[in-house]
Amino acid sequence: MNRIKVGVIGATGYAGLEIVRLLLSHPNVEIAQISSVSYEGKKLSEIYPQLTGIYEKVLTNDAVVVEESQVVFACLPHGHAEPIAKKCFDQGKLFIDMGADFRLSKEEDYKQWYGGQYEEKGLHKAAVYCIPELHRDRLKNAKIIANPGCYPTSISLGLAPVLKAGIADVSTIVIDSKSGATGAGRGLALNTHYTECNEGFSPYKVASHRHTPEIEEVLSGIAKQEVTVTFVPHLLAVNRGIVSTMYVNVPPDATEETIRGLYEEFYKNERFVKLLPAGAAANLKNVKYSNYCHISLHLDNRTHRLIVVCTIDNMVKGAAGQAIQNMNIALGLEEAAGLTMVPPAF
Amino acid sequence: MNRIKVGVIGATGYAGLEIVRLLLSHPNVEIAQISSVSYEGKKLSEIYPQLTGIYEKVLTNDAVVVEESQVVFACLPHGHAEPIAKKCFDQGKLFIDMGADFRLSKEEDYKQWYGGQYEEKGLHKAAVYCIPELHRDRLKNAKIIANPGCYPTSISLGLAPVLKAGIADVSTIVIDSKSGATGAGRGLALNTHYTECNEGFSPYKVASHRHTPEIEEVLSGIAKQEVTVTFVPHLLAVNRGIVSTMYVNVPPDATEETIRGLYEEFYKNERFVKLLPAGAAANLKNVKYSNYCHISLHLDNRTHRLIVVCTIDNMVKGAAGQAIQNMNIALGLEEAAGLTMVPPAF
Amino acid sequence: MNRIKVGVIGATGYAGLEIVRLLLSHPNVEIAQISSVSYEGKKLSEIYPQLTGIYEKVLTNDAVVVEESQVVFACLPHGHAEPIAKKCFDQGKLFIDMGADFRLSKEEDYKQWYGGQYEEKGLHKAAVYCIPELHRDRLKNAKIIANPGCYPTSISLGLAPVLKAGIADVSTIVIDSKSGATGAGRGLALNTHYTECNEGFSPYKVASHRHTPEIEEVLSGIAKQEVTVTFVPHLLAVNRGIVSTMYVNVPPDATEETIRGLYEEFYKNERFVKLLPAGAAANLKNVKYSNYCHISLHLDNRTHRLIVVCTIDNMVKGAAGQAIQNMNIALGLEEAAGLTMVPPAF
Amino acid sequence: MNRIKVGVIGATGYAGLEIVRLLLSHPNVEIAQISSVSYEGKKLSEIYPQLTGIYEKVLTNDAVVVEESQVVFACLPHGHAEPIAKKCFDQGKLFIDMGADFRLSKEEDYKQWYGGQYEEKGLHKAAVYCIPELHRDRLKNAKIIANPGCYPTSISLGLAPVLKAGIADVSTIVIDSKSGATGAGRGLALNTHYTECNEGFSPYKVASHRHTPEIEEVLSGIAKQEVTVTFVPHLLAVNRGIVSTMYVNVPPDATEETIRGLYEEFYKNERFVKLLPAGAAANLKNVKYSNYCHISLHLDNRTHRLIVVCTIDNMVKGAAGQAIQNMNIALGLEEAAGLTMVPPAF
Repeated sequence: MNRIKVGVIGATGYAGLEIVRLLLSHPNVEIAQISSVSYEGKKLSEIYPQLTGIYEKVLTNDAVVVEESQVVFACLPHGHAEPIAKKCFDQGKLFIDMGADFRLSKEEDYKQWYGGQYEEKGLHKAAVYCIPELHRDRLKNAKIIANPGCYPTSISLGLAPVLKAGIADVSTIVIDSKSGATGAGRGLALNTHYTECNEGFSPYKVASHRHTPEIEEVLSGIAKQEVTVTFVPHLLAVNRGIVSTMYVNVPPDATEETIRGLYEEFYKNERFVKLLPAGAAANLKNVKYSNYCHISLHLDNRTHRLIVVCTIDNMVKGAAGQAIQNMNIALGLEEAAGLTMVPPAF
Repeated sequence: MNRIKVGVIGATGYAGLEIVRLLLSHPNVEIAQISSVSYEGKKLSEIYPQLTGIYEKVLTNDAVVVEESQVVFACLPHGHAEPIAKKCFDQGKLFIDMGADFRLSKEEDYKQWYGGQYEEKGLHKAAVYCIPELHRDRLKNAKIIANPGCYPTSISLGLAPVLKAGIADVSTIVIDSKSGATGAGRGLALNTHYTECNEGFSPYKVASHRHTPEIEEVLSGIAKQEVTVTFVPHLLAVNRGIVSTMYVNVPPDATEETIRGLYEEFYKNERFVKLLPAGAAANLKNVKYSNYCHISLHLDNRTHRLIVVCTIDNMVKGAAGQAIQNMNIALGLEEAAGLTMVPPAF
Repeated sequence: MNRIKVGVIGATGYAGLEIVRLLLSHPNVEIAQISSVSYEGKKLSEIYPQLTGIYEKVLTNDAVVVEESQVVFACLPHGHAEPIAKKCFDQGKLFIDMGADFRLSKEEDYKQWYGGQYEEKGLHKAAVYCIPELHRDRLKNAKIIANPGCYPTSISLGLAPVLKAGIADVSTIVIDSKSGATGAGRGLALNTHYTECNEGFSPYKVASHRHTPEIEEVLSGIAKQEVTVTFVPHLLAVNRGIVSTMYVNVPPDATEETIRGLYEEFYKNERFVKLLPAGAAANLKNVKYSNYCHISLHLDNRTHRLIVVCTIDNMVKGAAGQAIQNMNIALGLEEAAGLTMVPPAF
Repeated sequence: MNRIKVGVIGATGYAGLEIVRLLLSHPNVEIAQISSVSYEGKKLSEIYPQLTGIYEKVLTNDAVVVEESQVVFACLPHGHAEPIAKKCFDQGKLFIDMGADFRLSKEEDYKQWYGGQYEEKGLHKAAVYCIPELHRDRLKNAKIIANPGCYPTSISLGLAPVLKAGIADVSTIVIDSKSGATGAGRGLALNTHYTECNEGFSPYKVASHRHTPEIEEVLSGIAKQEVTVTFVPHLLAVNRGIVSTMYVNVPPDATEETIRGLYEEFYKNERFVKLLPAGAAANLKNVKYSNYCHISLHLDNRTHRLIVVCTIDNMVKGAAGQAIQNMNIALGLEEAAGLTMVPPAF
């Protein structure tokens, strides 16, 4: 079988590098070209010495990537994906955007939270946002895929079953998330300077993070009613992983067992989402370096609050892995192709 | 001036060691005796090499400590403090319990959450629970002081002003706390084995932690109504520090500015509690190795939820430092004596 | 093609678990049985929740493992491998020992450093010690493989080319190694208690570590003369990885370029050993979670000392990965089968 | 007693901040002024929130600092200290340089390793380099003090007794040092970006670090012969602390006991240097946040190599603490004034 030619634009950022790394073990694709604005002409292994002698490809520019690829992953700051998406769309190539440019269906949300506007409105209509376990069907014939944000993935997977069942009081949702430092990317900043981050812990962008409208759009779609949440992210001094601890009121007669049943049913056919047994608590160390998602459920009987803990590797299920999962589905490949790595215990 | 003779029972545990360490720089006291069940007859510096050549005291037993001290700190597993408290009380010595035995005023709460009972009910009547910034007056003539738990301290200091003002909807309180690994003590366990804890993050004892009734008793006292909370602690892979992120609904017309005013007023005379300026977020690295408490306020105008972030060093303001602060007040010393260390930046 | 049946004895220790994890992605084998003395009858996923829903095998005992496997990996404390090795040997199965019982050719070395003796001397004659890049030929017809220690692997790979060339003054070898905490295994101990290990650094077993005779035997074999070294290991507060910094005098007329040439030649056909370009320094983060070994060379022209820095993942190339590499060669499989994972950048 | 007026130039860098922090607890001085080129006009607490409500001083410029201070600490990049030193010298103020400008007695060494030259040769004659335990007498009447580098301090204290005794073979000295990330300062760089530094370990500037000539000058002075060393520093993913593991050949008849005796004698009157008992190994966690230095001795009887492990907090004994110790001596204050903090155990 011929391997599908895939390209990665922005391959030297953390998401881009992780896509490259995972694609190197994918059985059905080959990496055609990779690009970088800052490092064009250099080998990727010069920037990332872990690739020494393993992958010595030279970085090119985005035009070459588009030209030679059937599938294009774009890892760009928001506001830069549209022109490339258009080119791919016009040439019938599959375009997968790792940024936020196609995630929000309402342009006014994008304007409010990101400060830009939609130049090519037709593209945005064509684009589909997809967390596979929630929106797999959307990928049929999709040509532009908006790959979800890391926080929205961990939150949506955690809350979907109880929201879909209609038993949660959606006015009471509080989301306390914690993300590893790769979430902040490779750009240097004081809060991710080693000595400032290490042995520290703090929230940031409290109730004002740009992932908020994306979270609310996904949750509203599942709940079939408008959902507004309080979302507070924290920076965690680990390399990888997100833990979202979520709180929502449920009726006094709801039991943990019933709710557990909803989750089991919801995810019974999913390979990558695992519901932990009663009494266990989800821990990010158990999913890191993998595409798995762990969910634990806890009912506070004293307050009738359901506590859902959902953890993923922000760089895999929260970024590169989910993008490949989306690609696999869109291309009709096995959904788990290239994503079967077993999480390490340490 | 003669130095006051102080003793520490259970000096080889983390709280006991930290009390000893801080007392070594206290201007008004001297350490008379220290004890340990497991290490009696050894020097404390044999267990903690940081004390080599600085403090070479030999560990004795609790009887000797009580005998030779005017003030006794007890760092014992819960259920072991009563007999020693009685001895001190009968001899007119000041007894400060670092454990949970005297923290709860209702015996049924103690029974439910800790599984024991109060043998000496009179002692429990005499005992006072004291977070100095909230209950300083209780220390007048106190002979038994129940030193607060680390989580309750961070939570009570964070919520007191808004609860006292009566503007919070106390049925909506959600508390998401994160504690460094010293909170689990020196006892070996798999979840604090280096390779299991490092690069991991997880909640534990979800909505079932023993500090819950203590939190509720303190908050109810301030709010002057029964308060029930959802409390979820998480283990953070740092050595020291607690961050409590707290969520509570406030009326739609409450502004961040008004609420900030309440906090400023409440803490205006306090040396150890600092309200951060608008826009800043409390970070545990800024209080570690000190007795300070940092609070940041954030109002989610979209949901009318107040978010309070409160951070302390769990071993200082959350344990040893607060105990010394309580001792200072009870003895009529300067409240900050021995507690003036400036937090390091790294 | 039928998959080869492989068993793992001691599968709940760190080395055993890592073998299981890697074998789950191996294209030519299947795991027949796994055993544990402490957890027989439990599922491995109960001890390691990362396996939830991925691998739900129940742990059995060593007899069943041997019975049902064609290849047996033994992950046992030293002194326990002989009887199982004998059983496997007698039944013509391939036995791979992860411990030290078959590593030393001289029984007196074993006695001196480990304190035991060889009961079945014939087995020890049959056993072969193998770092594939140095001793690949020994595996032909091997039935008992002594898998090397983690420190000796990083040290031997680093020094082999210069020792083989005969230009090093073998009386001057100083080895300063640093290992991540997984090297100490899963057993609880104070020095690997999170709060004691984190933000600390220290040597241990200074010039007295049990890997010393193994290091000297390998190096002597390559140098074709008796080599005695000073070896000082340090505990590094990271999960994985070893860095060995090695010092050896070379003749005044030796240049870094010449020596680099020796290394290039020595490893030119090796997939897993990478010589870094001049100016680069080997970093453990670049090999972790992989079977790769990175070597950097530095000549101190002022003292005519060659400095070799060699890094591996102690759990992969230093344990489980190298054992699988040895198995692959012994079975005539592709040497890199199951070991092609690309190291992550973070 | 009037407090001595002290100023800090470059107070927003890590060394400057640490000096300020320590001086805030010093019984005999007051901070007159602090300066910063980048942050003039801002409060230091705006840059370092740990100082909120504790120290709200506004940063000024270096001219004001010199004007209003009797003692000036300069925390500047190398090459910038001379003009300020001159001003202080001419006005009879005590100048303490935290940088490298006055550390090397030979201008050609400075040229070779730092690339600059000495403009004011008279100042360099007047300047004294001082590790108090080795050169205390030099401080008498000193007006310019070159505060030693962090690596040279840990190395010189570790090797001084055996070099002074004349029993070490100085041609065999190998120094393998490991430093926490504060050593790299507050400037952003990729190797101290959290995700690049965390879970990594690597040497840097192998056999080419600028501290080399300083190390050799100090050791040569003690050994009374020219000493050339191989020095390899490594970046350690901890905030604070240096461990230097040092190797040197001693005569076959030297015993660990004899050598231990030399060290005991050498340091018997020193408050800050502690020789650990036989069998113990120095660990940086036992000195961090303090001015103490721990030394452990280990003799490899098989190779007749002495291994000395010496650890300090790079920011205290390796920088700010030692500078204050030097100031105390020069001013005739108690040597340990402001430096009595007991190292924390965690």
